[in-house]
Amino acid sequence: MKAITLIEPTETNPKAQLNLAEVPTPELQDGEVLVKVHAAGVNRADLLQSQGNYPVPPGASEFLGLECAGVIEDPGTTGRSKGEKVACLLAGGGYAEYVAVPEGQLMPIPEGYSMVEAASIVEVACTVWSNIGMLAGLKKGQTFLIHGGAGGIGTFAIQMGKALGATVAVTAGSAEKLATCKELGADILINYREEDFAEVLKNKVDVILDIIGAKYLNQNLTALAKDGHMVTIGLQGGRKGELNLGLMLNKRLNISATALRSRDLADKANIVAQTIEHIWPMLADGRITHQIDRTLPLSEAGQALDLLEDSAVTGKIVLEVR
Amino acid sequence: MKAITLIEPTETNPKAQLNLAEVPTPELQDGEVLVKVHAAGVNRADLLQSQGNYPVPPGASEFLGLECAGVIEDPGTTGRSKGEKVACLLAGGGYAEYVAVPEGQLMPIPEGYSMVEAASIVEVACTVWSNIGMLAGLKKGQTFLIHGGAGGIGTFAIQMGKALGATVAVTAGSAEKLATCKELGADILINYREEDFAEVLKNKVDVILDIIGAKYLNQNLTALAKDGHMVTIGLQGGRKGELNLGLMLNKRLNISATALRSRDLADKANIVAQTIEHIWPMLADGRITHQIDRTLPLSEAGQALDLLEDSAVTGKIVLEVR
Ligand SMILES: NC(=O)c1ccc[n+]([C@@H]2O[C@H](COP(=O)([O-])OP(=O)(O)OC[C@H]3O[C@@H](n4cnc5c(N)ncnc54)[C@H](OP(=O)(O)O)[C@@H]3O)[C@@H](O)[C@H]2O)c1
Ligand SMILES: NC(=O)c1ccc[n+]([C@@H]2O[C@H](COP(=O)([O-])OP(=O)(O)OC[C@H]3O[C@@H](n4cnc5c(N)ncnc54)[C@H](OP(=O)(O)O)[C@@H]3O)[C@@H](O)[C@H]2O)c1
Repeated sequence: MKAITLIEPTETNPKAQLNLAEVPTPELQDGEVLVKVHAAGVNRADLLQSQGNYPVPPGASEFLGLECAGVIEDPGTTGRSKGEKVACLLAGGGYAEYVAVPEGQLMPIPEGYSMVEAASIVEVACTVWSNIGMLAGLKKGQTFLIHGGAGGIGTFAIQMGKALGATVAVTAGSAEKLATCKELGADILINYREEDFAEVLKNKVDVILDIIGAKYLNQNLTALAKDGHMVTIGLQGGRKGELNLGLMLNKRLNISATALRSRDLADKANIVAQTIEHIWPMLADGRITHQIDRTLPLSEAGQALDLLEDSAVTGKIVLEVR
Repeated sequence: MKAITLIEPTETNPKAQLNLAEVPTPELQDGEVLVKVHAAGVNRADLLQSQGNYPVPPGASEFLGLECAGVIEDPGTTGRSKGEKVACLLAGGGYAEYVAVPEGQLMPIPEGYSMVEAASIVEVACTVWSNIGMLAGLKKGQTFLIHGGAGGIGTFAIQMGKALGATVAVTAGSAEKLATCKELGADILINYREEDFAEVLKNKVDVILDIIGAKYLNQNLTALAKDGHMVTIGLQGGRKGELNLGLMLNKRLNISATALRSRDLADKANIVAQTIEHIWPMLADGRITHQIDRTLPLSEAGQALDLLEDSAVTGKIVLEVR
């Protein structure tokens, strides 16, 4: 089969090279199905991995790609049927013609969705629901702050927050991006280049979906209201920062940091099942819409990552495989 | 009535003075009962308050004392009966002959308990259950680390951890205190003056009950296993420390910091109800025993706080009021 292979950057060659190459088709483990990939979603983690900054979890495919949609080619030892259309949460391997997928990570194609649309939504849906629905338990009437509201995660999280009945606040770096957030339903728009979100939202926020990490740690805790919960899923602003536990104790705050990819199979199967239960109906009736910036052929995967690196994307990029 | 009043320390008079004085009996608010105090528990927060380091929450009694046991003298607007024996969670005011208590903070005297014994258990039971049972959700088979295992909080938490089926690890500062912890059921004993608990327990602990704060922050995160949860309720080792969010994300860690006293009435009533449901049966059948270091008359409250300050206490001190 064909897959995107990677020559990681070196000191003399500082940019990762992505090539479409002929590689062996994956062999199935017990409980896995072989999926013929039609479309693969592009995520920021793919960029980090291509730069050598995201070690592949043990047992995962060496190839890039955390989500796809396609058709079951070989059901292996599972009771699934050849030809079934599926969307898949992957630990890797989506940038390829075939990928092996544990049965617990198969999802139906959301009602009314094309393969490309389905491939754009799996990773964000599972990430946002597991962190904001399951872990932080966002409720009707609460205030929900999303950093990077116009990104792949952000555009989904805004709509989910509104569907759950929350007041949604976002940060983004330009007026255009904030306009997109507003269209998707965001109530409070903050350009982080012009305003300090912690001042605007001091003691007002119940749940934060954070992708920045250290740089925003103090400001996030300032923005949180009593019993607030910050969930960090990205460290775009660094890993280490000073924590004021006194402030946390006074306001009874909670901080969690999580990653989806490193979870074990049982955990992922649970998240996938709950995401289908809670999010798929919101996709079917349009409370949440997919946000596809553009599609590119699989062979242009390198360009897709360049666009992400340049913050030139609103929503998601999807690679068309066939 | 008589109550312990406080002359807070000044620069020229660096030690707080506690005096038994004649003061007005409290007036009841709607939904409160007046309790004739028989015994009042002593807590480290009382020491902090006497030193001017713990601001009294708005609306709370100005007097010391976060828990007591006694008899309802005036049921006010509630449907309670005069003469009913009660244990009480207080926002303040226990070091006195009478105290006004919101109905939601009344508990039955645990089966087989004297007034003194009941007064020793309310604050620890509500604190430990709300943080470890309700917030961190400690489960059978998990590993539970308790800092200060021989203290008022620690001696209770060890027994509760064992009752829930956890493996219990403790830190304490002397062989004698560790021996007490062992008798109460602790499985892993660490003298923090001789050993680094983070090395002993690296990646092994599911839930931490932390009273140290900043000084142990990094070590606590090192000790936590995947999906671990640290709950900080004391800051004996400082407020501010460096947080490694990268480590948190890799292990999917959670940090919470909480205080019981500042919670609103509805929150406290919920905690009290759940503590009665889950902990009172463990007191009745002896899975958790009270740990009273000594009793002193109300007039000796100053000496009680001195003993706490000198870490000369294993378990709790109770003041006998009548
Ligand atoms: N832990 C997990 O399981 C998990 C799963 C999925 C994603 N993630 C992480 O989540 C993050 C977002 O992923 P994504 O796919 O949405 O990436 P993305 O589409 O590239 O979005 C990132 C957004 O961050 C914004 N941004 C950059 N600096 C900012 C700042 N200082 N304040 C506020 N916003 C800022 C960018 O917009 P501007 O141009 O406006 O700056 C961009 O829209 C990434 O770090 C990714 O690794 C984690
Ligand atoms: N947030 C809340 O709602 C809440 C409620 C109740 C209590 N608390 C807090 O919880 C803490 C414990 O309360 P308590 O009533 O149990 O006090 P306590 O009876 O005085 O116990 C504190 C214990 O800490 C130990 N200790 C001191 N330094 C230590 C260190 N570096 N490592 C490990 N242990 C150490 C002491 O033992 P050694 O002699 O062995 O050092 C002592 O046994 C206090 O800080 C209190 O303010 C908070």
